[in-house]
Formats: sequence, C-alpha cells, structure tokens
Amino acid sequence: MSNSWWLNPCKAIDVQVVEQALERQQQLTKPAGSLGRLEPLAVRLAGLQGRLKPSLEQVWIAIFAGDHGVVAERVSAYPQEVTGQMLLNFVSGGAAISVLAQQLGAQLEVVDLGTVTPGLNLPGVRHLNLGLGTGNFVQGPAMTRAQAELALEAGRASALRAHANGAQLFIGGEMGIGNTTAASAIACALLDIPAAQLAGPGTGLDAEGVNHKARVIERALTVHAACRGDALQSLFSLGGFEIAALVGAYLACAQEGIAVLVDGFICSVAALVAVRLNPSSRPWLLFAHQGAEPGHRLVLRILDAEPLLDLGLRLGEGSGAALAVPLLRLACDLHGQMATFAEAAVADRPA
Amino acid sequence: MSNSWWLNPCKAIDVQVVEQALERQQQLTKPAGSLGRLEPLAVRLAGLQGRLKPSLEQVWIAIFAGDHGVVAERVSAYPQEVTGQMLLNFVSGGAAISVLAQQLGAQLEVVDLGTVTPGLNLPGVRHLNLGLGTGNFVQGPAMTRAQAELALEAGRASALRAHANGAQLFIGGEMGIGNTTAASAIACALLDIPAAQLAGPGTGLDAEGVNHKARVIERALTVHAACRGDALQSLFSLGGFEIAALVGAYLACAQEGIAVLVDGFICSVAALVAVRLNPSSRPWLLFAHQGAEPGHRLVLRILDAEPLLDLGLRLGEGSGAALAVPLLRLACDLHGQMATFAEAAVADRPA
Repeated sequence: MSNSWWLNPCKAIDVQVVEQALERQQQLTKPAGSLGRLEPLAVRLAGLQGRLKPSLEQVWIAIFAGDHGVVAERVSAYPQEVTGQMLLNFVSGGAAISVLAQQLGAQLEVVDLGTVTPGLNLPGVRHLNLGLGTGNFVQGPAMTRAQAELALEAGRASALRAHANGAQLFIGGEMGIGNTTAASAIACALLDIPAAQLAGPGTGLDAEGVNHKARVIERALTVHAACRGDALQSLFSLGGFEIAALVGAYLACAQEGIAVLVDGFICSVAALVAVRLNPSSRPWLLFAHQGAEPGHRLVLRILDAEPLLDLGLRLGEGSGAALAVPLLRLACDLHGQMATFAEAAVADRPA
Repeated sequence: MSNSWWLNPCKAIDVQVVEQALERQQQLTKPAGSLGRLEPLAVRLAGLQGRLKPSLEQVWIAIFAGDHGVVAERVSAYPQEVTGQMLLNFVSGGAAISVLAQQLGAQLEVVDLGTVTPGLNLPGVRHLNLGLGTGNFVQGPAMTRAQAELALEAGRASALRAHANGAQLFIGGEMGIGNTTAASAIACALLDIPAAQLAGPGTGLDAEGVNHKARVIERALTVHAACRGDALQSLFSLGGFEIAALVGAYLACAQEGIAVLVDGFICSVAALVAVRLNPSSRPWLLFAHQGAEPGHRLVLRILDAEPLLDLGLRLGEGSGAALAVPLLRLACDLHGQMATFAEAAVADRPA
C-alpha cells in the first residue's frame, strides 16, 4: 500500500456508453421520462459499468463495527456491549442486514475493527483488534494516525475482496453504539455548523438526550478546533474505526470501478469525507435513502445526493441500502429488457 | 352475480393477529421503530392475512385496457391506436410491466375491455368487447349502465381468478390513451374541485395542452353536473372501462381478503371511487407510489394514503406498484425472520 493511496485518481465514467444508454432509453416502449428517476439511474449504472445493459447480480455487503470512547459521555440509549453482541447476530443470520443479504443473494462480510469486548473471536467475523474502541474525543483524538490508516486500509481490503469476487455493487454498513455522535461531530467540523443543527436522536435519545449530545459535540469541536474543515484530520480526531473503514472502502471502490450504494446518516458522513478527500470518487456513490436522523438531510444536500427511498429508517447496518437494491436491479432490467418502439411495432408520439 | 355486489361488506382485518405482530416487532433485534414505515406495513399485512408472519410470494398483476371517446377532444399526446398496440407488447414481454412481472415471478393477465381497434384477437389477451372505446363524455355519458356493470364485473372476475390462484397481493394496472383525462374528471366530480387544480400533463402534454385538457374537463363537469359527489354515477358518466374494472377488482379483493397494491394516479382515482362506494374496502388498499401527475398528491391526501415510493413515475401499467413489491416482501421477511433479543442474546435498551 502506498502512502495516501486514497488520493489516487478514481476510475472515469464511460461517457460513450452513457450516450448509448441515453439513446436506448428514448427508444423503449414508454413515454419518454415516464419511468422517472429509474431512467437516469440505469444510464448512470451503464456508464459506471461500461456496459450498455448494466446488471447488479453480484452485491457485496460489508459491515464495519467498532466502539466509541465518547459513549462515556452518555450519548447513547444502548449499552456499549451491544456492538459485540450484534456481531454474533450478524453472522448467525438474525440481524436485519442478515435477513436482507440472504433475500438479495448478496455476499455479507462482517469486519470487527475493535470493540469494548476483549478477546472476541467469532467464526465468520474478521477481528482486526485496532483497539478496545476509540478514545473519548472530548478529551483527545479518537484515533491515532496509525489506527486510522489501518481502518482506512481495512475498508480498502474489503473493497478489493469485493472486486475479486466480481461485485457490481458495494454496500457498506456500520455498527457501533455511539456512532451517530461521531458522525455528527465530523459533519459539524467539515461543514462548520453548530452541533445543535445536526445532532439527532440516533437510535433512541429523548429531547434532553439530544441536547446533551449536542453539548458533548460542541465541547469536542472546541478541543479539535484545529482540524475544522480538514477532512482527514476530522475523521481521525472525531471519527470511529468503522467510519474510517467506510471512507476507505468507498474510495477504493471508486478507484477499482465498483458502484457504491451509500446507506444512512453515518455512511453519508463517510461519503462526505471521501468526496472531500478525493472528489473524483463522487460519480461512484449512489444514495439509497433519506433516513430519520435530522442531520442526514443536510449532509445529502451538501453532497447534491438524491436518495431513492424515504421510509423513516434509522437502523444502520447497511439495511437502508439493501432495501434499495431491488429498485436498482429493476431499473437495470427495465433498461435492458424492454422492447423498443421498432421491435414492438408500437407508434411513438407523433413529431 | 347479485345486483350491487360491490356494496357487500369487505373482509375484516384480524385485530388479534395485529396485536401479536406488534408485540413481535418490539422483540426483534433492532431499536424499536428503526425500520420506519416497514414495521407498520408488516403488521398490517399480518392483520390482513390473519398470519403472524405474512408473506407475499404470490402476486397477481391484471392490466385493464380500454379506449376513451374523449380523445376526440385532443387531450392526449399519443395516437389512440397505441392502446391496442401495447396489448400485444404486454403479452410479448416487451412492456415495462411485462419485464417487472417476470422479475417478480408474478402472474400477469391482460384484459382488453374495448379499444378503438376492431377485431383484435391476441393470444394471451382476454378481449371483452364492451365497445370501441367509451363515448365522448363531453357530449354524453362515457358508458351505458350495462357497459359499466360489465366492466365492474370484469374487475371482480380478475380478483376471483387471483383468489383461486392463491394470490396474496393484487396489482391492477391500466392502459388507455386519454385515461388521465377521465380519471381527473371523476376526481373533480367526486371532490368538487375545479379541473385546473387537478389536470396534469399525463404522458406528455405541454402547458397549453394541460390548459386545454382542463377546459375539456370543465365542459364535461357542466354536462354531468347532476352526478357531482355520486361515486357510481361519476364513474359511469366520466370514467373508462378500465377504470371501472379497477374499481370492481379492488372491491372484490377487499371482499375476498386479498391485499391490493394501488399504482399511480388513475388507479388511485379508482381506489377513491371504491372507498366512496364501500368504505370497508379501505384497509385492504396499500398505496405504492407518489406519481408525477400533480393531481395524484391531492387524491392520496384525501384517501389518507402514504405511498411508499416517490420516483417521479408516470407510466401506468401497474409499473409503480410492481416496483414497490420487493419492499413489501422484504418488510415481511424482516418481520418473519429476524431474531428476537432473547433468541440472539442481545441486550435490549435499559428500561
């Protein structure tokens, strides 16, 4: 691995195939534009895959898990042990993302970057042991530079495994009690907005809990004022292992040429970091859904992202992205399999 | 068939199963409510099917087609022959809904209630020959009472075939050049609102075309002022064969106990007629998407319907409903297959 591999240029979209795909869309037996957002989606996937008729049979889902030192500040409704307990649930098939991966025929891998539960050794989980969770970022940096680079590299390694397995779509999921606090802090630092505008209930805080969370984030932003606006430093100082892994995975996918379907708030913040670090990654990032976390809308707007679904989801695990996969697949099927006006002998609109 | 069969009571939802399903949702390994709208959706399907763990393997899609006399007033961008041409495309596999039905493993039936193309005899299409399209409703009633009752009955017959085939979900689609004009006229008559508020571009009118369409509808509303507010008379005087068939199908599904997934604007107007005729049908109607036609939002609001998707679709054919099927299926899979906190030994939130 080279130093700063994440700055290497991402793969270019095939503009010639985009032209051909646009032309094909105009010839299909339907009023032009009547399939709404599915039409540009299929065209974009064609350009990304360099194929007039794209397909998304091979879907790779990687769950990145890690614990957060900032949970010591009482920013989550759940006990921190849940992170480790859920790892077992992911590989046992009982978690939401496990059910979804099974139904979609997707490959699911689970990467534990470091939780508070020492000595975890679960069959089917990749344990990387970067630390017993991150440091409490109200008191100092969340990660050392070495930890952060290992986390970025862990994401890249997952993307490379996806590539080796022929993945046509990459979904990154996350699990980590406290990680909406970390994601909110990163977004505040990058976008220079007050925590009160971005902090939300996460998996279940009440109004007073949200206010407290915002105050914790404000303290952290003061401590780490020097990294404001710096994507890499914000990620290292305020992020989490799993968030850094998502950033690394997204950038490596864009470099290798795998379309990414971004999940909810935390993943969207990882996407924001990825795009700020390396803007050539942006065309490879598709956005699955508008989640319930209030800051998500703002982050999506900054990214000029139009999510496909809006179902009030706030689970994480990559579940919202998995739920959008059938829409992407059907967009490809319609684009590739519908008859043209000529083939079907149907009259197009008179000129 | 009894007279006014459509007024017979619809099947009741199983409230005991609803309670059990709600309880199960609280025990699944996720923060309560974190799957957003998918949670009440699974609970509702459980109640409709009378099974704690509902499933939607068997999906029935019926396309109802008919032509419209009002097209003589130049209210559509497409030639009327397209209705008949598309019938062939539906059964040949080249239309959007054909591709979607194939991908979903759904049963697709095509019912031609009466088009302007005489003597159509396409293998795989049920030709009912109610007339060479409806009458021009600016000059008189669209349908005779006999035609309208046959159209309602045709919808019911499709629902009964769906039931006999074990269908767990019914999607009605429509094809008929000019049918956004008919649907808009019905909605204006039922809701007592001016045509300018409801008329939209349909499959491709420009602004002047939309204004003209609104004026045509206003003329029709004057001619048929006597039926304002009367669901059945509005349907007969201003509707179309395929719209009446949708009304009949929705009501028969609700009577037989098959959940209905309502497609776009025209189908939603048919749902409005069905609910006004027989309010006990409402719990059986799920709404798939918010379409591009501007009147759709209003009709959905009146029905207190929350559509699942908002993708700018305006194709019809049942395509928007078909696109939402995977979401419903995955909602059932999550509800039925996720582990409970007890099964997975995961800590629930402290009380």
